Amino acid sequence: MRMTIDPPYLQLLRLLRNEGAISRAELADRLQLPRPRLLAEVERLVAQGFVVEAGMAASRGGRRSTLVELHPRLRFAAVDLGASSIDVEVTNGRLEPVAAYTEEADIRSGPKATLHRVNELLAKARVDGAYDRLDAIGIGVPGPVSFRDGVPVSPPIMPGWDRFGVRELLTREHGCPAVVDNDVNIMAVGEQHGGVAHSVQDFLFVKVGTGIGCGIYLNDEVYRGTDGCAGDIGHIQVDPHGPMCSCGNVGCLEALFSGTALAREALVAARSGASQALADRLAANGTLTARDVAVSAAEGDVACIKLIREGGHRIGSVLASLVSFVNPSMIVIGGGLAQLGHILLAEIRSAVYRRSLPLATGNLPIVLSELGSRAGVTGAAVLASDVAFEQAS
Amino acid sequence: MRMTIDPPYLQLLRLLRNEGAISRAELADRLQLPRPRLLAEVERLVAQGFVVEAGMAASRGGRRSTLVELHPRLRFAAVDLGASSIDVEVTNGRLEPVAAYTEEADIRSGPKATLHRVNELLAKARVDGAYDRLDAIGIGVPGPVSFRDGVPVSPPIMPGWDRFGVRELLTREHGCPAVVDNDVNIMAVGEQHGGVAHSVQDFLFVKVGTGIGCGIYLNDEVYRGTDGCAGDIGHIQVDPHGPMCSCGNVGCLEALFSGTALAREALVAARSGASQALADRLAANGTLTARDVAVSAAEGDVACIKLIREGGHRIGSVLASLVSFVNPSMIVIGGGLAQLGHILLAEIRSAVYRRSLPLATGNLPIVLSELGSRAGVTGAAVLASDVAFEQAS
Repeated sequence: MRMTIDPPYLQLLRLLRNEGAISRAELADRLQLPRPRLLAEVERLVAQGFVVEAGMAASRGGRRSTLVELHPRLRFAAVDLGASSIDVEVTNGRLEPVAAYTEEADIRSGPKATLHRVNELLAKARVDGAYDRLDAIGIGVPGPVSFRDGVPVSPPIMPGWDRFGVRELLTREHGCPAVVDNDVNIMAVGEQHGGVAHSVQDFLFVKVGTGIGCGIYLNDEVYRGTDGCAGDIGHIQVDPHGPMCSCGNVGCLEALFSGTALAREALVAARSGASQALADRLAANGTLTARDVAVSAAEGDVACIKLIREGGHRIGSVLASLVSFVNPSMIVIGGGLAQLGHILLAEIRSAVYRRSLPLATGNLPIVLSELGSRAGVTGAAVLASDVAFEQAS
Repeated sequence: MRMTIDPPYLQLLRLLRNEGAISRAELADRLQLPRPRLLAEVERLVAQGFVVEAGMAASRGGRRSTLVELHPRLRFAAVDLGASSIDVEVTNGRLEPVAAYTEEADIRSGPKATLHRVNELLAKARVDGAYDRLDAIGIGVPGPVSFRDGVPVSPPIMPGWDRFGVRELLTREHGCPAVVDNDVNIMAVGEQHGGVAHSVQDFLFVKVGTGIGCGIYLNDEVYRGTDGCAGDIGHIQVDPHGPMCSCGNVGCLEALFSGTALAREALVAARSGASQALADRLAANGTLTARDVAVSAAEGDVACIKLIREGGHRIGSVLASLVSFVNPSMIVIGGGLAQLGHILLAEIRSAVYRRSLPLATGNLPIVLSELGSRAGVTGAAVLASDVAFEQAS
């Protein structure tokens, strides 16, 4: 077997990030380090400004041990760029938000305008007193990313972003390391850090929103693929006679079920008279979105329930294949359309449990994201802290 | 980033296994070990009987350095159990075969009869002078395996094998460590060690034979899934209106295209008059197999070419989805039906290149296995050597 070993300083910083103040005695135990070695590591991290001493621990029966915690000054910026939104958080070392901003924005306005706005929001956070300086920035974008190079790669819905130096721009602007990843990957990382997948090493995070994507978490880390586009399940063909997709192929999963597809079908249902609820909402607001379908379904509109069930069945069929292939420990459903809730979940479960191998589904939970819209920024903060901690080497 | 580090003795033994005799000076360079540390490691491995000194290396300009190689006495047994065959090899430390046996056998005769026959073949190899004692045994079986426990788990085509202690029986019989894995996984390992995937860290090995399965090789190791059944793509549904599969579902990939399905369709083509070539072969031999389809297709029989093309298209459609999902560096096609050769390969390529994301297929080779029927035993020998080398810790 191969062994995966993180150096002690990384293990130590991550423990303090995930659990808060810990005594030196306990740290030595948990890291399996001889006490002098642990003390030397702590001393070095104190000198570097990563950790501080924080009083005495409760006695464990012998001499009381000094508590160690992350420096209260540590600050990470977490950015989640969606197709039509910017989410920014500034967190402390324990990844608790000290400032948060959300606004609408069109990713198609290009990298310069978008990242300029991100920088303005971060400047605002600084003025608001959220930080003096940032220790690292993590950012997710809605398209494939070369994780190594810190650039988007041929992102279909992000004109002008191909190979744009996102990491370089942020590093230059803020004088700290930055890390760039795909938006679904950061959601998977977030859900593993602070959500329902906390104790799981192999799981799939399926984002159902404007588009559909999948974060693949295997052997306790994100699997990104050879070109950074692993998990792009939105363009798996589910119906060779289906509608044309924006990618140029026909019958892709997200051409049949996604925020965009659902809004289109809602309009058809409203105009054809199939759904009175949607017709009413269209008359009232002049437009329809996936949210209208969710609300009308919750109110019992049969046509809307049918739309969601058909969509859930499509996603479930694709996931059934992926479950047979990956044999994961858990599937987490997130993204904007997760608000379609239990009708969607029930259909996905039904398709997966019926179609996949019994051995693979015997102990397989299929659940909704716990973090919801905060999954992305949480994961971006995790990646930011990891890259900051590596500087302590 | 996490770091994966093999201990020096493992790296050293694998280098000697993969490359043959190497001088101490070069070993110190390649393992980045201080010379005294390297000498101590070598001395320990000599004392344990893993390596021997092998004369002087050619001068590199200074003092000539002593060559080190694996002990010529090292012997590994590699066993590949198929649905209807047993392949056994005994190899030396460099995994070169010193004895090899192949015979037909029905896996349904159960674990005791099958493993008894394996032991008889190994006893024969000993009498033939292939070994005095074995250092480790690697065995692949045609079904899901708990790699940790060394037992098959709910294997559908292996009645009586569920949770049977395969590793325990072999270890007891031969007094050496044993390792048990799925047959497609060992083929992937074999192809990575000595075949076309030699320089690749992320690839899919697709076995097309009596059934269909996929070995998933990610981040330089086999990914086995939560329950050991990752890669079971034969039961992905490709046609909701397709024929009933032996698994109880309808329209599974291997119900539509596999050795079994092809033999069935060949019979239909022969009897309906669609293929004169198959009708002739049926009249001559009284039966038809996938091999008859291959031979007739190579001779230009249109109905046989069509059967293979349709099958290739089915597999290609499934692989197109998996390529979008995994974004691998290579796809290797192996197994008995790989003998259908370039007609099959062309259809698979056409479907994948047309359907998958352009970013994922830009640099994606889809190739036939180089090792052919030896892929399995080669991989089993690799796993055996790994488990033997770990004893040197």
